[in-house]
Amino acid sequence: MKDIFRINILLDFYNMLLTEHQVKILELYASDDFSLSEIAELTNISRQGVYDNIKRAKKQLEEYENKLQLYNKYLLNKEQLSHIESLIEDNKCDEISSVINSIIER
Amino acid sequence: MKDIFRINILLDFYNMLLTEHQVKILELYASDDFSLSEIAELTNISRQGVYDNIKRAKKQLEEYENKLQLYNKYLLNKEQLSHIESLIEDNKCDEISSVINSIIER
Repeated sequence: MKDIFRINILLDFYNMLLTEHQVKILELYASDDFSLSEIAELTNISRQGVYDNIKRAKKQLEEYENKLQLYNKYLLNKEQLSHIESLIEDNKCDEISSVINSIIER
Repeated sequence: MKDIFRINILLDFYNMLLTEHQVKILELYASDDFSLSEIAELTNISRQGVYDNIKRAKKQLEEYENKLQLYNKYLLNKEQLSHIESLIEDNKCDEISSVINSIIER
């Protein structure tokens, strides 16, 4: 269950669409690397409650990513950035414009 | 009430977060420019129902924009694009990289 990297990334993009409570639990779990039992103690809910909360919040994050693709677009843009940087190194300024456009329009 | 341009723009970014029914009504209203009465007839709900639906859906769109700022970031990126294009024209390739980075990290 512990796919911390992905949870952290998706939280970066979609934390505003979750409740404060959800964000808090996911951060304890994924950023601070607490165990379910530790989070249960800290938040005063049962271990099963913590588990269900995390499962539900993760599902919501994936649904938002599925619909809005913000993380996916970010990865594509980063790839384009590398491309642009190589164009700059080769001093191919004139080719940069079209790459930029594909980023902006994404 | 009829701020068609903004509704259309926000629909572009957030239509996936609304229900099919909401998108359909907003499109009839904002893209096809139907009146509330016409939409009521087409969708088989009362004129007041259409009004309430549109009001609620618009509020949701604004809340999503408030939280995710996708339209706002798009505008900022477009501005940066113009800047980059002028750098390309002036052949200031080396300055482009930092601007690109500010776009990618947004």
